[in-house]
Amino acid sequence: MTRSVQIYDTTLRDGTQAENFNLSVTDKIRISHKLDNLGIDFIEGGWPGSNPLAVEFFKTMQGETLKHAKLVAFGSTRLFSNPCQEDKNLQALLDAKTPVITIFGKSWDIHVHDALRIELEDNLLIIEESLAYLKPHVETLFYDAEHFFDGFKKNHDYALATLGKAISGGAECLVLCDTNGGMLPHEVQPIIERVQRFVTERSKTVTLGIHAHNDSETAVANSLLALSLGVTQVQGTMNGYGERCGNCNLTSVIPALGLKMGYECESVKNIDRLYDTAMLVDELANLPHNKYQPYVGRSAFAHKGGIHVSAVKRNPLTYEHIEPEKVGNVRRILISDQAGKSNVLHKAKKFGIDLDPNSPIAASIVAELKNLENQGFQYEGAEASFELLMRRAIGAQANFFTLRGFRAINSKRSMDKPPETEATIRVEVGGEEVHTAAMGDGPVNALDKAMRKGLTQFYPALEEIELVDYKVRVLSGQHGTGAKVRVLIESKDKYEQWGTVGVSVNIIEASWQALVDSLTYKLMRDEQRNATKN
Amino acid sequence: MTRSVQIYDTTLRDGTQAENFNLSVTDKIRISHKLDNLGIDFIEGGWPGSNPLAVEFFKTMQGETLKHAKLVAFGSTRLFSNPCQEDKNLQALLDAKTPVITIFGKSWDIHVHDALRIELEDNLLIIEESLAYLKPHVETLFYDAEHFFDGFKKNHDYALATLGKAISGGAECLVLCDTNGGMLPHEVQPIIERVQRFVTERSKTVTLGIHAHNDSETAVANSLLALSLGVTQVQGTMNGYGERCGNCNLTSVIPALGLKMGYECESVKNIDRLYDTAMLVDELANLPHNKYQPYVGRSAFAHKGGIHVSAVKRNPLTYEHIEPEKVGNVRRILISDQAGKSNVLHKAKKFGIDLDPNSPIAASIVAELKNLENQGFQYEGAEASFELLMRRAIGAQANFFTLRGFRAINSKRSMDKPPETEATIRVEVGGEEVHTAAMGDGPVNALDKAMRKGLTQFYPALEEIELVDYKVRVLSGQHGTGAKVRVLIESKDKYEQWGTVGVSVNIIEASWQALVDSLTYKLMRDEQRNATKN
Repeated sequence: MTRSVQIYDTTLRDGTQAENFNLSVTDKIRISHKLDNLGIDFIEGGWPGSNPLAVEFFKTMQGETLKHAKLVAFGSTRLFSNPCQEDKNLQALLDAKTPVITIFGKSWDIHVHDALRIELEDNLLIIEESLAYLKPHVETLFYDAEHFFDGFKKNHDYALATLGKAISGGAECLVLCDTNGGMLPHEVQPIIERVQRFVTERSKTVTLGIHAHNDSETAVANSLLALSLGVTQVQGTMNGYGERCGNCNLTSVIPALGLKMGYECESVKNIDRLYDTAMLVDELANLPHNKYQPYVGRSAFAHKGGIHVSAVKRNPLTYEHIEPEKVGNVRRILISDQAGKSNVLHKAKKFGIDLDPNSPIAASIVAELKNLENQGFQYEGAEASFELLMRRAIGAQANFFTLRGFRAINSKRSMDKPPETEATIRVEVGGEEVHTAAMGDGPVNALDKAMRKGLTQFYPALEEIELVDYKVRVLSGQHGTGAKVRVLIESKDKYEQWGTVGVSVNIIEASWQALVDSLTYKLMRDEQRNATKN
Repeated sequence: MTRSVQIYDTTLRDGTQAENFNLSVTDKIRISHKLDNLGIDFIEGGWPGSNPLAVEFFKTMQGETLKHAKLVAFGSTRLFSNPCQEDKNLQALLDAKTPVITIFGKSWDIHVHDALRIELEDNLLIIEESLAYLKPHVETLFYDAEHFFDGFKKNHDYALATLGKAISGGAECLVLCDTNGGMLPHEVQPIIERVQRFVTERSKTVTLGIHAHNDSETAVANSLLALSLGVTQVQGTMNGYGERCGNCNLTSVIPALGLKMGYECESVKNIDRLYDTAMLVDELANLPHNKYQPYVGRSAFAHKGGIHVSAVKRNPLTYEHIEPEKVGNVRRILISDQAGKSNVLHKAKKFGIDLDPNSPIAASIVAELKNLENQGFQYEGAEASFELLMRRAIGAQANFFTLRGFRAINSKRSMDKPPETEATIRVEVGGEEVHTAAMGDGPVNALDKAMRKGLTQFYPALEEIELVDYKVRVLSGQHGTGAKVRVLIESKDKYEQWGTVGVSVNIIEASWQALVDSLTYKLMRDEQRNATKN
């Protein structure tokens, strides 16, 4: 028997309340499209009454189209002192012009007293009134019962009364929130069952949702349990980001629902996009990927123990609870070059490189790859560098230019002025030496300008390259200012976008490697395009 | 009604099967003492039949004393082809001379066929015989039923039969393992109840344990559920490290058992040592601390949203499910653009700065903070820079040195050699100019060395600074090589650890700002410490 469920993502709102997790408006728009592509049903974009970036986000999103997901604006019940029409928060929600609005209200008496500092009755009033005020202006209206479980444990009559007001105010779904994240699974069931009885006595149509936090490491379990009891909406974030220990991790919930519990929803249909979606969120937040993360972690299907390795190669079911490809992940064998080799062959095919699996060249590419990876090179997000590596290994890479050296001078002569940076490069093209220099905002920018200055006289097409993104990361397990850094550069021209990488203890050198690969890749692709024309 | 439970830690064995998680014998001995100090009941030290480091560990531990914990050697049932006396694995277990031995056996028919490649009956034989052989040589004998849940789902009669053999072989506790980590909580209860009926029909003394993996993000929930059903031993690791997505996280289980579920055990008595124990494991494994981790994460009690901050200061229960001090952690109020004046005042108090909330200086600090934040400065993780900012604003910051300028030259003369970097700095100390230079691995490392070289003649204490971490981030919404970068530096001395920040389009300048703040902070704190002595 299949059941349906709504997946509600609050990465862009609750997620951003995590320490060190920050997204620009542009990042949020990219993530919205990625979530939409995955099949998320609701995307909570922000709290416009509290955060100017959210206002800007909703404004920009009015010009964007989502294929499936509905955008949600989030906010609080009105301030007791303001009538609805004058409440800035409610007005901001309406100004966001989203098809869906979610507001949260207090369910726990101590919050009403200590946080809002109003009477219990007054809180009931503002819940009902705020919802009723918003109702005519939206397609769908949701109510988040903040701190519901703690509130119920302390004063269940009052907690239920707040839900009663939410129903009469017009909320279509009441989302029970474990806002402090302290609930253990055995406590969840009796509370949800009591709420279900309460709700069905009052409405035939109102449904329930669950919004759990992970302070007890039970948010996913609590959410799955709630859904198995008949709750139909689950709220959470990608990779579980959120305030303190995070929100319920949708990246773990969606596969459980779709691959184990027989649920249906749009994101289950596209579940092989899960890995890429999870990766994009980490990348845009510029936070390190949690390799141990269930389903989408790089280590989630990585087999290290010798016994596991041979068993899993014979029959993957012996040590894998699902097939990694189902969520877009891959199996990795850590002690053996067999899986390393299959990845290489897979990529070769993708790049249109003819590589005999049993050839010494294939083996030497794998060995070189392992060696580079041990030094910190990582080709996720830098496939162009990987393709160049392979082409060089099979001798198919033309030499567009030969590097001879560079120098970057960064000079701050006075505290009142910014530093000056000058870069000098020496390259050789077809036997002719080019030795030129350029100024820049910083050393990497100066090198970029100098390289282009030197090479565009031979290769005018290099002018078409736009550097779209520049990321730096200090490698794990390294300390201090002598640590190795990895630089990733994202470039584009009118045909495509590509990523390149460089690694060094010297950030200038690492950046230069990535720059050089970017220019080389462009020239290589232009040559391919010209060859197919002729 | 209090119940008692045994906590069984396998960080040193199963934990080390995690990718990138490696411990030396010395590390393992340190961790053993730390776990013992926490009050862990069983410490599984390794698999001597498979890992020479484990052999060395057990040998060394024979000379060490544990106050409470019992050391456990781990291994497999004998190879079918070997009689017990000739089986190297069983002999290695005896040679470890531990008071406790745990062996694992196959519960899942496909494993018997595909992994062991023997008959089902033969597997039953080796389970019973291996246990019976070891029994006279140990105080306590445990049996891990590997893949028990998957085995039960596939062929419950066979899975139960393996347990029957374990009972007759002499195992005192049968540990049911979800080795693939694929079990969801709702599946666990009926299986455990069936096993309980099976066991009580055959023995009055044999108990049950649970060993869950976290591939579905439900290991903690599954374990707590099992314990609530009467299982008395829980196996797991510190910080949840383990194969693929890890083991059941004891750092989340112990607080749940002790602070919420009314269980008793030695580690609950010492639960305020939990944070330090968790930190030591990360440190020795040289893996980054997971700040979002429940209970012991640096962010577990970190409050960012403005509404949360004001509420939690009035009444911590409003947003914290337990008091952080109970597990050795602390509450943190984050400075971010979501905060504002109340955060600034809170920090001022913490820094011992006397700031009148209504003064123009307070308002100007808030305004300056917003301005700097808009430029990309972020003080999360850089509190030392924030404190210096505030002290300068109130005119309380001494001038230890005056910067005049710097220069960094990065020069790659040949493709065969790494680049050479030289940094030159000019500073003035008490009217005397210092102009010196140093070489480094990269421009930032060179500047760091040059600064210290120039200043330690005046301030020898600067030698005590160790740069612990260096992070670079391109600011969101900025593109290409002309983007602003933010550099965060973490430094420490024998007294404390502190973070500083720098922002610029020029990565060298951004690094320099953070370095200068780090040195200034150290000098400021040393001055404070000397003042309190006198």
